[in-house]
Amino acid sequence: MFVSSQIFAKTMRITIIGSGNIATHLGAAFKNAGHRIVQVYSRSAHNSALLAYHIGAEAINNIDSINPAVDIFIIAVSDDAIPGIASELAKYDKLMAHTSGVTNLQALLNYTDKAGVFYPLQTFSKTREIDFLTVPLCIEAADETIHATLKELAQSISNNVYDIDSVQRKVLHLAAVFACNFPNYLYGVAQDLLKQNNIQFDLLRPLILETAQKVQEHFPADVQTGPAIREDFKTMDTHLEMLAGEPGLEQVYKILSQGIIKKGKSKYGA
Amino acid sequence: MFVSSQIFAKTMRITIIGSGNIATHLGAAFKNAGHRIVQVYSRSAHNSALLAYHIGAEAINNIDSINPAVDIFIIAVSDDAIPGIASELAKYDKLMAHTSGVTNLQALLNYTDKAGVFYPLQTFSKTREIDFLTVPLCIEAADETIHATLKELAQSISNNVYDIDSVQRKVLHLAAVFACNFPNYLYGVAQDLLKQNNIQFDLLRPLILETAQKVQEHFPADVQTGPAIREDFKTMDTHLEMLAGEPGLEQVYKILSQGIIKKGKSKYGA
Repeated sequence: MFVSSQIFAKTMRITIIGSGNIATHLGAAFKNAGHRIVQVYSRSAHNSALLAYHIGAEAINNIDSINPAVDIFIIAVSDDAIPGIASELAKYDKLMAHTSGVTNLQALLNYTDKAGVFYPLQTFSKTREIDFLTVPLCIEAADETIHATLKELAQSISNNVYDIDSVQRKVLHLAAVFACNFPNYLYGVAQDLLKQNNIQFDLLRPLILETAQKVQEHFPADVQTGPAIREDFKTMDTHLEMLAGEPGLEQVYKILSQGIIKKGKSKYGA
Repeated sequence: MFVSSQIFAKTMRITIIGSGNIATHLGAAFKNAGHRIVQVYSRSAHNSALLAYHIGAEAINNIDSINPAVDIFIIAVSDDAIPGIASELAKYDKLMAHTSGVTNLQALLNYTDKAGVFYPLQTFSKTREIDFLTVPLCIEAADETIHATLKELAQSISNNVYDIDSVQRKVLHLAAVFACNFPNYLYGVAQDLLKQNNIQFDLLRPLILETAQKVQEHFPADVQTGPAIREDFKTMDTHLEMLAGEPGLEQVYKILSQGIIKKGKSKYGA
């Protein structure tokens, strides 16, 4: 459609610090929304050149080559590297925002007043395209003006923009480990169990997808299935016997099943 | 489209024993594929009437009211109830197939030679429609003739039909607990963490969906993200501190993180 809300958004000049998964996906989203990516900085010449090429920016590998003529620096580096970058960029007196789930806003405020957070809550892989409009973007800002700028930038690339403070963001990051990283690990455990018995992983893929699709409309506790929620101890005992050779998995099975049973009881007030 | 492979499939006369989630979804799939559902048997008059109404069958609550003029009895009842049902139906000398992941074919062979298994590997809720064509259907049969019949019936409702014996089916069922029931429990844990901090579950929904979508194309170990796979012990320590009040969750966090780290090391041969 020609008339979109994005057409009215102000074009911003953005430099991206970092060239990993988040830098890559944010860079592409900014470019698609019509913003100008001025530079991509990374210690790795290969990575910065690749990302810069894709989003029409200049690649730099020396932090002293920063072009200060930008509206915002987006800092998408590892948590440990954030303070060092903030300290280097502070002299330009421009707005900077980090993209981390676990680092406080304070980590930037130690170096500048013009600080914010721009945290996209999604699991990114460089090889997989994402519809960024659906990605929840969590913003936090040092003051009202910065908040307005970050909100405008966020709304130019996502339909799901939330105000989330540093304490809430840490909780979100922890919750994301339970909602994404741990389930993905369990998919892998399931795949290993099948492999030992010459069964293709393909058989489980529709089940995995449907499980995630169900909670798009429902709450997880309302759609829990399986032997634990039915308190089918006979099946659980059979499963534990099958896992007997693998003490780690036996323990995972027991603890998660106990969790499901406990949650089921509390739900029904028993 | 008018010309479909389903149009050439033989119409079968089917009676469904049970009226739970699997009975409901199988019944609808059979009806949509043009089969005739003769009766629905359930001890619950309400449930059998409801399902029978939707799929144009007769509802019965007394096992003695069985109409023997069918091609197959589909037994979709709890595992404990299967032998009792098989023993009641044996006298009609018709093909019967159960739909369970954990019960052996032998449980039917104890009563009849005309036995098979028709196991749909999916998580079903009565309130959610499923595209049955994508559901993996695992079949097993007492002989070649029964195998051909079950395969034809299965292919009339699903594009994903697999030959799976009783041993493999048990492994699949266990793997499904890891791939579906446990991830759903962890979604609920994540929701609880958010609720305690006044954050909506909506923020996690896109992440949950993308995590499941990623493994539709990739293998889980290749797309693992999060602090554990990065061996980011600082973040993991912060998370464990945040969970300090909840010993159950602390233990879940530790065990699953250790699993991810171990799997990561074995993958890279370290």
